[in-house]
Amino acid sequence: MSKSEQERSVSIELPDGSQLDFDGPVTVEDVAYEIGPGLGEDCRAGRVDGDLVPPEYEITEDARLEIVTPGSDDYIHLIRHSAAHVFAQALQRVYPEAELAIGPWTDDGFYYDISGVDIDEDDFPDIKAEMESIIDADYDIERVLRDREEAAEIYADNEYKQDILETEAAGEDPISFYVQDNWQDLCKGPHVQSTGQIGAIELLQIASAHWRGEEDNEMLTRVYGTAFESESDLEEFLEQRRKAEERDHRKIGQELNLFSIDGTTGPGLPLYHPNGKTVLNELSDYVANLNRDADYREVETPHVFRTELWKKSGHYENYRDDMFLLDVNDEEYGLKPMNCPGHATIFDQQQWSYRDLPVRYFEDGKVYRKEQRGELSGLSRTWAFTIDDGHLFVRPDQIEDEVEAIMDIILDILGTFNLDYNVQFATRPEKSVGSDEIWERAENQLEAVLEDADVDYDVEPGDGAFYGPKIDFAFEDALGRSWDGPTVQLDFNMPERFDLSYVGEDNEEHRPVMIHRALYGSYERFFMVLMEHYNGKFPPWLAPEQVRILPISDDQIPYAKQIQNRYLGDYRVEIEDRSWTVKRKIREAHEDRVPYMLILGSNEEEDGTISVRDRKEQEVKDVDPEAFAEHLDTEVDQRRTDVTFVQTYGN
Amino acid sequence: MSKSEQERSVSIELPDGSQLDFDGPVTVEDVAYEIGPGLGEDCRAGRVDGDLVPPEYEITEDARLEIVTPGSDDYIHLIRHSAAHVFAQALQRVYPEAELAIGPWTDDGFYYDISGVDIDEDDFPDIKAEMESIIDADYDIERVLRDREEAAEIYADNEYKQDILETEAAGEDPISFYVQDNWQDLCKGPHVQSTGQIGAIELLQIASAHWRGEEDNEMLTRVYGTAFESESDLEEFLEQRRKAEERDHRKIGQELNLFSIDGTTGPGLPLYHPNGKTVLNELSDYVANLNRDADYREVETPHVFRTELWKKSGHYENYRDDMFLLDVNDEEYGLKPMNCPGHATIFDQQQWSYRDLPVRYFEDGKVYRKEQRGELSGLSRTWAFTIDDGHLFVRPDQIEDEVEAIMDIILDILGTFNLDYNVQFATRPEKSVGSDEIWERAENQLEAVLEDADVDYDVEPGDGAFYGPKIDFAFEDALGRSWDGPTVQLDFNMPERFDLSYVGEDNEEHRPVMIHRALYGSYERFFMVLMEHYNGKFPPWLAPEQVRILPISDDQIPYAKQIQNRYLGDYRVEIEDRSWTVKRKIREAHEDRVPYMLILGSNEEEDGTISVRDRKEQEVKDVDPEAFAEHLDTEVDQRRTDVTFVQTYGN
Repeated sequence: MSKSEQERSVSIELPDGSQLDFDGPVTVEDVAYEIGPGLGEDCRAGRVDGDLVPPEYEITEDARLEIVTPGSDDYIHLIRHSAAHVFAQALQRVYPEAELAIGPWTDDGFYYDISGVDIDEDDFPDIKAEMESIIDADYDIERVLRDREEAAEIYADNEYKQDILETEAAGEDPISFYVQDNWQDLCKGPHVQSTGQIGAIELLQIASAHWRGEEDNEMLTRVYGTAFESESDLEEFLEQRRKAEERDHRKIGQELNLFSIDGTTGPGLPLYHPNGKTVLNELSDYVANLNRDADYREVETPHVFRTELWKKSGHYENYRDDMFLLDVNDEEYGLKPMNCPGHATIFDQQQWSYRDLPVRYFEDGKVYRKEQRGELSGLSRTWAFTIDDGHLFVRPDQIEDEVEAIMDIILDILGTFNLDYNVQFATRPEKSVGSDEIWERAENQLEAVLEDADVDYDVEPGDGAFYGPKIDFAFEDALGRSWDGPTVQLDFNMPERFDLSYVGEDNEEHRPVMIHRALYGSYERFFMVLMEHYNGKFPPWLAPEQVRILPISDDQIPYAKQIQNRYLGDYRVEIEDRSWTVKRKIREAHEDRVPYMLILGSNEEEDGTISVRDRKEQEVKDVDPEAFAEHLDTEVDQRRTDVTFVQTYGN
Repeated sequence: MSKSEQERSVSIELPDGSQLDFDGPVTVEDVAYEIGPGLGEDCRAGRVDGDLVPPEYEITEDARLEIVTPGSDDYIHLIRHSAAHVFAQALQRVYPEAELAIGPWTDDGFYYDISGVDIDEDDFPDIKAEMESIIDADYDIERVLRDREEAAEIYADNEYKQDILETEAAGEDPISFYVQDNWQDLCKGPHVQSTGQIGAIELLQIASAHWRGEEDNEMLTRVYGTAFESESDLEEFLEQRRKAEERDHRKIGQELNLFSIDGTTGPGLPLYHPNGKTVLNELSDYVANLNRDADYREVETPHVFRTELWKKSGHYENYRDDMFLLDVNDEEYGLKPMNCPGHATIFDQQQWSYRDLPVRYFEDGKVYRKEQRGELSGLSRTWAFTIDDGHLFVRPDQIEDEVEAIMDIILDILGTFNLDYNVQFATRPEKSVGSDEIWERAENQLEAVLEDADVDYDVEPGDGAFYGPKIDFAFEDALGRSWDGPTVQLDFNMPERFDLSYVGEDNEEHRPVMIHRALYGSYERFFMVLMEHYNGKFPPWLAPEQVRILPISDDQIPYAKQIQNRYLGDYRVEIEDRSWTVKRKIREAHEDRVPYMLILGSNEEEDGTISVRDRKEQEVKDVDPEAFAEHLDTEVDQRRTDVTFVQTYGN
């Protein structure tokens, strides 16, 4: 190691913040050995400025580096990447005519896009057996560099690999291949050292995908699989996946009659049935009240605007391909991809004094983003979704107070739904608008709020938007999956573009700062998360049907109606009046996840009582209808996440 | 005309239901004389199957006929049509180069589209003076038939009249002209007999209009005027018009900061500011509660659908030109012009038994209709508007009960807003779908509801939709103007197109009847009517700001906040804390139409009282804040149309 500062020296920043300087270009592996021989031995890959690269990768400029060893979080990606190769080799052993396109790792496994064979999931056992024999053979996985000419020759008959050579690998020579046994693949790595280091594999699913995801390109077969270091990790994953499938919100949505997405009406455009709309209304009322208490005022903006507005806001420039555009009498209009320009327009209709600020608008605003059809999925990815969008126009000195108030609301909401979460604080990126002074002040204010709120958060340096720093929440559901959640973003750009102003105490015009904030984020996605998180067992305050009355026989129907009338107006109460056995009525109510069943027989009718059964299959008899009403009031007011009557009253 | 046609008999149905038979074609005037010589003398025109025609018009087929005399409601149209001619003659006397396009009567006057002259409203006095001299001269107005060749020659230099000859008058020969003095116009009539029969005229306004209203055509100058039988009728109209201008909702909307329509964001696409959204929310909550009480369930459908849906519903065929269409990945989509197909789609997602019906959905559903840009006007005509739409799926035997329940809600709402109304019952038209049996049964049920409800109504025979009979309400505002209001329409067609069904008691599939109903109709238009009807003085329950607290000096601001806190949560209460004189504060609050001002000076603070002033400029001192709160509770709960505290408490 040399500490001299030469012109071509390379400075490496390590995760602990320390720095290593080199005289010139250096490989990942070299750095690892430089830190220590043990680490050098264990080095399987590196993360260089965020990108995962093989040990042989040469660092030519100053960079941040993290060494990846078998103990690293990133190591699983190497296993899965190698598993993708093993899959491809096995496939070509079984189907020599199979043509390979591209096979990356993903968040929870890998896929390989293939062509030239017609396989389905019934063929998985054969292919998997072949993969296992490749793993058992423990072939070395070696990186081999071939010159461009040779590479082109190898792929003379494979248009996909040719395409990769001419795009992703354009300008590279030699080209990196990975070889195992007598099989090879054009690949940048990184990989594990031998096929035997892939602990456990599974093939999951077959789907279709366009080459490079572009609809005009030809359709390929995509095989999804996964791999883990050990059988037990794989088992745990598969169990989790089974649970997630059971809780799939599309399944729950149909079972509980919450929503539908229909071929004739259009993909990515959900229709909410009465039950679904009930839940959405409760969610919306909840935040609307929080907003009003925090002095937000509701506005309503159109779903369609002239593209003039999108040009003014900059969305046309950056977002155009994802927008739904239409022509009206030879003028171009667009469905809104964002609500902020509409809110800025309303703000701009009026003269404001420094005393009027902050001005806070909110709207359940539907936005439209043209996702690829293949990427649409239930409510988790739609063309049209509703953001519980808020925009604040504030003076620079008000940022801290306002963000603090927003944080309070967000923490309140996360508590209500009993969702775990983590927080990212993203700071100024290299390219940004706004003065040093306003960035520094704003970042300090956000940081102060985070410290005061006493939440754990990660700083993501340089990950802020070009228009301002932001705080993002991700929440974790009951299956441990993470979802984008609430967000607070400062914006120094939009007020500039809309030339927004207020008159200061000095009688001069000043530029306000805009704060974008969403609490749920998208209603559609949040609704999906809730369905899956609660497995359809919504908290009583959200349940489409809160109470179902089950008369034991038709004789009790008049009494059932009397009890129903007691609760109606306050609660959503239905009577099961079909001529079924009470057993069947109970089973159906459990299937419908109704929080409470009130079972009414002749005893109850005589005594003027009710038997209360909850969806946890707990039951208590001889209940005073008033006591139940009182409990329900509390449970709903407090927005408890599950039924609590029987355990409270029954003991 | 062939002999056989000549000999075919013609049967004329008169308004009293009686019938006159003629051996062959007969003119309107002939029929009038046939009824009686007096009527023959007075006959100025006829309404034949709804169209206004001159006395000379020959009826060649069976028809309904109403004779128009100077006492008829229709006579005003003749006066105005002749006034349009008088205007055109006068214009060409003053500006011989003026070229005439088209000059029809309208609901409240006439217009003439002209070209070749550059006039503005300052030129009205000259033109009007010339018109009056033409009226004073009392020229006969005579219908003259000219052959097509002659007509074409007369208009050799006038492309508009040539266009009319080739379109509206295509195939006609001879062609009808109307002549007065040495002036003539291509025209089908009818007219008054001489210019002296035009009682009083006024020129109102100049605007621009494309030839035939098509944006690609050239722009013409449109002069609006009106005419009445007498000066006093004209004066009354002009006074009404002045009042309407003062109350113009665009003016009120700006004064009260309710909404805006912005050039950049797009015409016909209103943005609701916080104050406007507050009123809309109150309106929406009011009907949502009425709907829920009547067992409707809310749904939510997208604003965009594949045109497949519009083809299925028939809207594509009939409505296409008015739809906003867009292309998404080479498939056609359309913004919804109606909510019904979405609701039918939701109904269709489920199996229904006869016991489940009626199923009632409601939605505040935004719809989009592509009006000509020139016809857009504030909130009264927009591209996007929200219908408080309800759709019921009922068994045929349930129609009467359901329509009765809807009528109750409608009458409730009309009472709440203190709007006068009239009711039309429109029955089966010639072209219709559905069996005789279902039409007869349905019409009888609607008629029974109207009779039971004890409302005055007019029957409009044959004016129903092709898909079913309907009841339309029109409400009258404070200026006596009539607006489309609530509607109840039966629909035998949509259930057919969507193949909707339920399983009957007989275990067979049956077709439900659909009922479309709207209470306000369009929120946008209703909001406009309310603004103008109340002149911005919304009933206290609707007022964006219900109470404004006016501290006499800054010393009372803490007391003002204390009083505000007492009412906040229940009411919308602001403090006027600018350092103005109390006089100015009061003036401003009156301008803002705030129902109540609470004036707080040192006396009030000492006594713990408030002085209450209302927007009628009535005031009462020494009021217990609790007494005011109690009154407000009542006033708002009962949705009273104006402030009532001071007259109640003050006396």
